[in-house]
Amino acid sequence: MSVCLDIHTHIVPERLPPYAGTGKDVAWPSMADAHACHKHVMISGKTYRTVSDGCWSVPRRIEDMGAMRIARQVLSPMPELLSYWLPLDDAQVLIRYLNHQIAEMIARAPERFIGLGAVPLQDVDSAIRELEHVVGNLRFAGVEIASHVNGVSIGDVRFEPFFAAAERLGAAVFVHALRPAGQERIVGAFSEQAVCFPGDIALAAASLITGGIAARHPRLRIAFSHGGGALAILLPRLVHAWNRISAAKASLPESPAVYARRFFYDALVFEPQAIRFLVASFGGSQIVLGSDYPFNMGEDDPLGTLERADFDAALFDAITRANALRFLGIGGG
Amino acid sequence: MSVCLDIHTHIVPERLPPYAGTGKDVAWPSMADAHACHKHVMISGKTYRTVSDGCWSVPRRIEDMGAMRIARQVLSPMPELLSYWLPLDDAQVLIRYLNHQIAEMIARAPERFIGLGAVPLQDVDSAIRELEHVVGNLRFAGVEIASHVNGVSIGDVRFEPFFAAAERLGAAVFVHALRPAGQERIVGAFSEQAVCFPGDIALAAASLITGGIAARHPRLRIAFSHGGGALAILLPRLVHAWNRISAAKASLPESPAVYARRFFYDALVFEPQAIRFLVASFGGSQIVLGSDYPFNMGEDDPLGTLERADFDAALFDAITRANALRFLGIGGG
Repeated sequence: MSVCLDIHTHIVPERLPPYAGTGKDVAWPSMADAHACHKHVMISGKTYRTVSDGCWSVPRRIEDMGAMRIARQVLSPMPELLSYWLPLDDAQVLIRYLNHQIAEMIARAPERFIGLGAVPLQDVDSAIRELEHVVGNLRFAGVEIASHVNGVSIGDVRFEPFFAAAERLGAAVFVHALRPAGQERIVGAFSEQAVCFPGDIALAAASLITGGIAARHPRLRIAFSHGGGALAILLPRLVHAWNRISAAKASLPESPAVYARRFFYDALVFEPQAIRFLVASFGGSQIVLGSDYPFNMGEDDPLGTLERADFDAALFDAITRANALRFLGIGGG
Repeated sequence: MSVCLDIHTHIVPERLPPYAGTGKDVAWPSMADAHACHKHVMISGKTYRTVSDGCWSVPRRIEDMGAMRIARQVLSPMPELLSYWLPLDDAQVLIRYLNHQIAEMIARAPERFIGLGAVPLQDVDSAIRELEHVVGNLRFAGVEIASHVNGVSIGDVRFEPFFAAAERLGAAVFVHALRPAGQERIVGAFSEQAVCFPGDIALAAASLITGGIAARHPRLRIAFSHGGGALAILLPRLVHAWNRISAAKASLPESPAVYARRFFYDALVFEPQAIRFLVASFGGSQIVLGSDYPFNMGEDDPLGTLERADFDAALFDAITRANALRFLGIGGG
């Protein structure tokens, strides 16, 4: 019987409520029928993505989890639904709906699912209130946020009250790449998700270090998607800069590596040697399993890739179970 | 006696010619005295960077090379001098001056220095003519270019004639991060060079693969700064996308890994385990020594870091000497 947790999976509701706000040309998403077991996520009259019923169907998820040898999935919204770019009133309606959809999925199989909700980070006070709702009322482990908010780094001090609230509430924060920097600098048939997500999630992680939020909130539990992307290869450069640039050293009491090794990272890097590099960079206690289920860019067999990394049993258990429970702040670790 | 080559070092001329063009408010650089042995590079009335005399002094460089155990340095311009953003006429004057300054430094110690010139890539035809000048007349090994040209990916087909010319001429191309994507998404006292260069150089390398230029020019010899930045951790994701996305697969005859393993990468990643990850990702035949001398973010002891990676003698020789000669297309390998 598997005991493995997958902290990086997404949901899309089967249906979305019609737009009932007062705005004009609001990019409110809707769902349209596609081929069997699939729907189109429509945004502003275009298909943003065609998704499978694994996005909303609890039986389908549980069947797929069996094939993937995953005991428990952490559910978070498809990042494009985080709605930071919508008017606040509209975003609050959509986010509340998403959070309650996640709660309903959990209620149908509470031993299999753990929730990470959405919050409207375009307004920090509203985001804190929604955070309190999802951890206090819906009993989620925490929330998913994007790597930036409408182009503003999540390491900006304006977001510090949100991270302070997450620390105070013991809420886990999963940071996911979204609308990445540099997408105007790619060419060809590969999506910005394929090419630019690793750079963008690294900018998010680095900025939480360089801006001081990580240093000032040592009990914040935070995880980064896609293995933290470029951060593992970037971290020695940040340490070098901290040692070389007096303003950088004066700004942080400890080396950037100290903070980077408090963060968690999913192992969604597709190659055993890349996972080993994450472990070498951040420590075996900070790596957790993540598949990006049920999306096309996801990893079908995250355990298989991890097995090929040839870790000892203790480290394998840590990555597949104990680290995730610690990140999520739930028992059983 | 050292036989090691350092392919990533920069020059700044001690003096720059005054602006003699006809433009208005052209961001023409100049040099201003700073403290002993240092000068300010002034651009648009501000100090862009304060640099040491290692930038222009041949005796100082040779002394420092002794301390660093480096036999031969490859000289390339400080990237901010590449001038893609200047009017073409002005850029051509500055670039020609830079290239002749490099030629003069080489003439003073031809057994110690190898040249990589600049080309005005804002106009591809002019860039090809300057490339022909630096390899044909100045006998440089090739050129340095930036990771993008005024925000346009170097993988864009508009630049393909330039890469075709480099392939035809047997000219080495060293790609250096510059004005990186995502610099509006960082916070704190760390520079964009510290935080954003690894993401940007990876976008450049990835786009040469995803846009097909690498596939269509298999004999192109090209190296990337900063170890290729995020590319090592990104590459398995590109391979995954190629396998998953039919349009991506249709666009490239072979896996992105095939092309990535034809590129060269400097070892400027500051940690032995990171260098080992580069070797595991790209192959020991593709990694070359690079220090970023004489800049503050550079590595003072690139050989020492490499020694701590504990490679066998053959791989150590490849990284410190033979790979660089192969990249540069010069004898002795």
